[in-house]
Amino acid sequence: MRMVDLIRKKRHGGELEEREIRFIIEGLVNGTVPDYQMAAWAMAVCFVGMSARETAALTLAMAESGDTVDLSAIAGTKVDKHSTGGVGDKTTLIVAPLVAACGVPVAKMSGRGLGHTGGTVDKLESIAGFHTELSREDFFRQVNEIGVAVIGQSGNIAPADKKLYALRDVTGTVESVPLIASSVMSKKIAAGADAILLDVKFGSGAFMKTADDARTLAEAMVAIGAQVGRRTVAVISDMDQPLGRTVGNALEVREAIEVLRGEGPDDLRELCLVLASHMLVLGGRAADATAARTQLEEAIASGAALRKFADLLAAQGGDAAVANDLSLLPQAEARVAVKAAGAGYVAGIDAEQIGLAAMILGAGRAEKDDAIDHAVGLELVAKLGDAVEAGDTLAVLHARADDDKAKQAAASVAAAYRFSPSRPDVQPLLQGIVG
Amino acid sequence: MRMVDLIRKKRHGGELEEREIRFIIEGLVNGTVPDYQMAAWAMAVCFVGMSARETAALTLAMAESGDTVDLSAIAGTKVDKHSTGGVGDKTTLIVAPLVAACGVPVAKMSGRGLGHTGGTVDKLESIAGFHTELSREDFFRQVNEIGVAVIGQSGNIAPADKKLYALRDVTGTVESVPLIASSVMSKKIAAGADAILLDVKFGSGAFMKTADDARTLAEAMVAIGAQVGRRTVAVISDMDQPLGRTVGNALEVREAIEVLRGEGPDDLRELCLVLASHMLVLGGRAADATAARTQLEEAIASGAALRKFADLLAAQGGDAAVANDLSLLPQAEARVAVKAAGAGYVAGIDAEQIGLAAMILGAGRAEKDDAIDHAVGLELVAKLGDAVEAGDTLAVLHARADDDKAKQAAASVAAAYRFSPSRPDVQPLLQGIVG
Repeated sequence: MRMVDLIRKKRHGGELEEREIRFIIEGLVNGTVPDYQMAAWAMAVCFVGMSARETAALTLAMAESGDTVDLSAIAGTKVDKHSTGGVGDKTTLIVAPLVAACGVPVAKMSGRGLGHTGGTVDKLESIAGFHTELSREDFFRQVNEIGVAVIGQSGNIAPADKKLYALRDVTGTVESVPLIASSVMSKKIAAGADAILLDVKFGSGAFMKTADDARTLAEAMVAIGAQVGRRTVAVISDMDQPLGRTVGNALEVREAIEVLRGEGPDDLRELCLVLASHMLVLGGRAADATAARTQLEEAIASGAALRKFADLLAAQGGDAAVANDLSLLPQAEARVAVKAAGAGYVAGIDAEQIGLAAMILGAGRAEKDDAIDHAVGLELVAKLGDAVEAGDTLAVLHARADDDKAKQAAASVAAAYRFSPSRPDVQPLLQGIVG
Repeated sequence: MRMVDLIRKKRHGGELEEREIRFIIEGLVNGTVPDYQMAAWAMAVCFVGMSARETAALTLAMAESGDTVDLSAIAGTKVDKHSTGGVGDKTTLIVAPLVAACGVPVAKMSGRGLGHTGGTVDKLESIAGFHTELSREDFFRQVNEIGVAVIGQSGNIAPADKKLYALRDVTGTVESVPLIASSVMSKKIAAGADAILLDVKFGSGAFMKTADDARTLAEAMVAIGAQVGRRTVAVISDMDQPLGRTVGNALEVREAIEVLRGEGPDDLRELCLVLASHMLVLGGRAADATAARTQLEEAIASGAALRKFADLLAAQGGDAAVANDLSLLPQAEARVAVKAAGAGYVAGIDAEQIGLAAMILGAGRAEKDDAIDHAVGLELVAKLGDAVEAGDTLAVLHARADDDKAKQAAASVAAAYRFSPSRPDVQPLLQGIVG
């Protein structure tokens, strides 16, 4: 088999066989397929696409290119959750203890943040003492004992995906539904869950810019799940503004705890309840989403969800008192208000700009090895559809000092807001379920 | 400027500016644009194409990436000729002395053969003593004195094209009209001629499989010529069978001399007269192709063309007596007839298979540094449309011995022939002129 022939076959619209896709992915990992051939192939895929069978074969080949996690030591149906990324997305912090409180085991591997998006591991590390490096045995035992554990991604998960993604990033081949879908699903499949719940975002802060594109991606991922025997459901949600009101690690933990207490912003709470209800159904703990929702609301009202969060903190060395005392979270000294220059309705909040502002303050990383400051970030006071007058506060920065960095971040936040003279149509946060 | 942005722009159908194309080509040559980005860009071009302006900019950037030849020391309008490749294509051997005899200076740089196609330099080296390594000064002086010189490609002509072509070859991105057109034209422009006559082939032995594709390529090259101020004309000719009857270096020289004597096969003579007539017009030596043809036929009839060929041999150290005594050419000992297995009409002769047979006999190179045997090759007895009976000779191999190589070559020749029970439509050799 020669790679050049497989590139030509794809270029001319042919369907690659499973063994041909395995040849490509094995070659990518062991270096016998050079990057330039891989890049040409990826570009051909961008134009020609891949069939459902090809996409599933690519996903499996990438999933099996490195370590695969065997979760069979954990009792019950393990349901993983994945978000296609966003700004202010603290849903894992809420959903994990919430569904665990309802009996679905959550054995979660999470990542760190890069660029304008945050990572669950960074957020949890805002809590004094919390650590995410557990041995595989401790990880399994903790899930069996308290129903939930969150660890950092370790080992060599889907190295083919890592290599291909890095190459796509520099060759203009990121936007391709089968390549994005197989990238996401290969990691989830390698991570070993029985079922997968996807939160597919669209809008200014997401890969996919429209609801239609998000649906197409969701359908591709659900189809992969079906082909490889992992039940998959996707929720399509709007990311045309940051989720909730806070961006920044400790600030997001605070907001997550508020939701677990039955408080917090409506959009965040609603999305979490929808995601969690489908996880309960996937995990066999509820007959349908409506029944699931009743259980979840009860778990919040009874305090069971918040207690599960406290259990999670305690089990991983964190200060469980944080769950009941938000003042224990790290705080930045300075508050800088970003004010509206004129009157109008908030018609858009560019999530990427907001994420970059948080990064400038120190909440995120520009480079992979940068240190982050858990205390800094920002709170959005005005959200989509809100009416503001000149001088009203749009957002409040939590900064270390009212310095140049804060000024730069404030400018980025101000630039993120778009106004209109009349009340804009705000589309619903939830745009459908696939699977 | 970032290459990834230029790839994305091209991928999404944008038109690159000249400075952007220069950035890409300079990066390719100096290594700042890695192969994987170049490959992704080339694949995007395969799908999206390039505008006439982009194609011209790419051609010039590649032409100027290395040495450029200044032919101004040679008096008159220098007309170069280029064939897009073929099997049995000895037209340069005929056309160069023929147009020189009619007053158009020919300062020709030619290549060596590789794979199933031959090279003019190899063919001329069949003649004892002939050498193609002239200094630039001797090259110019010879053209000024006798009107014609043929040298090997030397110096660093269009290194960007060389690099890009090598990359396209292994990334499935060879077939792209703007990339093929700019590759051909960049070398011709760097070689310094005032005007360019292209012989664009189509059929089994050519890049382009149909006359329509050949016309599209011809139009692209003529458009480049117009954009960069080099008058360009393209002749579209059929390569659905080898040109003439001989394939192999000394055998092709013999056939070329026959045409210069007014003999030789019709297809070869006709194509040469058409190519040469357009070169006379381009060179300002005839008002139109009809007038040019009269001059050319006169040059053959009078013996002027053959004398010019002898002058060329003598000027470059070759045995000029060959022009009048074909027995002085090297000859192989063995003759092996390839016979028809059944009766029918010859409906196809796969030129690539015939070229490979010649290569097996030793007439061509599998690898760039292989030695070649000037004496070996083959003569086609049956050509397209001919009726044959079982046992008739289709072709005669000229081999060193009736050995395994000859058997292998004979099998390749036999496989190249396709028959039909009824007389096939043989399309005309010449399919049009562009420019």
